[in-house]
Amino acid sequence: MISFPQLDAFRGGNGITRVIGHRGARGVMPENTMEGFKFTIDVGIDALEFDVILTRDRIPVITHNHYLLGAATREPNGRWITGEEPKVSRLTLKELQTFDVGGLDGNTVYGQRFADQVFLNDIRIPRLSELLDLAASPGMEGVHLLLELKSDPEAIDDKNERADVVQHVVDEVRARMLESRTILHSFDWLLLDECRKIAPDMPTSYLSQLPESSEDPSEETSITIGPNYKELTTSLPRAVKEAGGQMWCPYFEDVTPDLVAEAHDLGLLVTTWTANEASDIDKMMDAGVDGIVSDHVGRVQRCILNRGQRWVP
Amino acid sequence: MISFPQLDAFRGGNGITRVIGHRGARGVMPENTMEGFKFTIDVGIDALEFDVILTRDRIPVITHNHYLLGAATREPNGRWITGEEPKVSRLTLKELQTFDVGGLDGNTVYGQRFADQVFLNDIRIPRLSELLDLAASPGMEGVHLLLELKSDPEAIDDKNERADVVQHVVDEVRARMLESRTILHSFDWLLLDECRKIAPDMPTSYLSQLPESSEDPSEETSITIGPNYKELTTSLPRAVKEAGGQMWCPYFEDVTPDLVAEAHDLGLLVTTWTANEASDIDKMMDAGVDGIVSDHVGRVQRCILNRGQRWVP
Repeated sequence: MISFPQLDAFRGGNGITRVIGHRGARGVMPENTMEGFKFTIDVGIDALEFDVILTRDRIPVITHNHYLLGAATREPNGRWITGEEPKVSRLTLKELQTFDVGGLDGNTVYGQRFADQVFLNDIRIPRLSELLDLAASPGMEGVHLLLELKSDPEAIDDKNERADVVQHVVDEVRARMLESRTILHSFDWLLLDECRKIAPDMPTSYLSQLPESSEDPSEETSITIGPNYKELTTSLPRAVKEAGGQMWCPYFEDVTPDLVAEAHDLGLLVTTWTANEASDIDKMMDAGVDGIVSDHVGRVQRCILNRGQRWVP
Repeated sequence: MISFPQLDAFRGGNGITRVIGHRGARGVMPENTMEGFKFTIDVGIDALEFDVILTRDRIPVITHNHYLLGAATREPNGRWITGEEPKVSRLTLKELQTFDVGGLDGNTVYGQRFADQVFLNDIRIPRLSELLDLAASPGMEGVHLLLELKSDPEAIDDKNERADVVQHVVDEVRARMLESRTILHSFDWLLLDECRKIAPDMPTSYLSQLPESSEDPSEETSITIGPNYKELTTSLPRAVKEAGGQMWCPYFEDVTPDLVAEAHDLGLLVTTWTANEASDIDKMMDAGVDGIVSDHVGRVQRCILNRGQRWVP
């Protein structure tokens, strides 16, 4: 049996609840940027969640949406993207890096959701390799990666595409010997099958969101690429276990104490996305999750301390 | 007539409202720490407000209260200060730096005011010289300092003490040739008289808070060391002008558009402390202040952008 040492960095219990920085720390810093990741690490959060997509020239980059989000992306002329949002997979890295992702447009719903986020200029979508290089550098041995692979809903029937995306990402992780600090994470459970074939030495984390849960505004839905929840004949934790996963990562509104207990009985870890309000963070601790993925890492630290817990041993 | 180039870094108008990080950026990072100052500079805010007190061995350090605030200070054993809060002026630097000021106690009113502030460990009260060294280092030429000198209410009648405090602070600023990037700032208008004698090449900023304004909980009052507002025979802006000040820095609840206009007519700059709610930040912009001292620098950046303004030329 393969052991996965990286799972320990995400394991809760015994007075520990883990904090996982969502896209860095989106509440404070621009999401999925090197500046955001560095901030998150600087404030003592070593577990980073982020999203990977391939460019047209097949370079893994860190960004959430397949179509660049206008509310968070400025053109080289400094203006917010107007009209059609460019698709990442149709741009070369060079073209992609002409855009500035250092701030949010306050005139959008998305911008208003993160009204405290600082506004930076000349910030580029990072290559995955930039973050991996940081994690592999001296002093960063504690950094662990919850690496989300995004499947393109427009290529959902292309199995070769999935395998190729996984191979590109895994190659970059291996090149820096970060397999033992990385978990592969996706809403696309079929893609996670490919992960287990290509990289059996890395654990898999199964994202879920029930169709009846509320959607985040202004973000691409993940429901189209997930499993058909209505066809599941078992509980979600059991389905994750049967699929071969080591971690279940449900939407916070879908979490119950019973499901967490069931997942733990099955030997799974449970992290949850994205709990941002203190009351929701408290509910997740009540439910007994191992870790909380949040945009507001300071707020989660404080909620954890307030109940006499900690996020590192 | 002496010109004060540093005033330009705090001047608003023509679509500019300045952002001044309050004790660094207390909403996000532990106040008056090097970590907080670096964060503030990293996110594009070059104007820093902070507080200076002398230790028993007469070393200027950066901390707000004369008595270490229990809600923000841990003893070497890791516990929050219990019982009597130690007085900074009775501790040597070495003794002072045994305390950890990296986090807030969530069981206190003060801790609950800043519920998103990250929690760090092994963070020491910095010497003034550490921040001055940072400001004097290459690439930091844009950093400007709103250096608040705190008068001890228990030594309020000791004029020699005031002059000595000013001399120690000014010596450190001069040693790094930062006179042209520093403004001397105080609630104690008599101390500012000493500043103008000892350092006529540095402008002075007059803090005010009317007695009827609400107090910040868990913070030492500044009212006891300020002027007797009831005895003032002119408006506050005129009193600042007559005292020899270049900047007036009123409590945000005391700001009106008429007073700001009067101050501007007198040639004063107007910055205001500490506007943290978006509605208050907006009111301060409506009133036409030059700059806003805030714990939430990202929030102020975004409010400024939302009305089509900017904080740097």
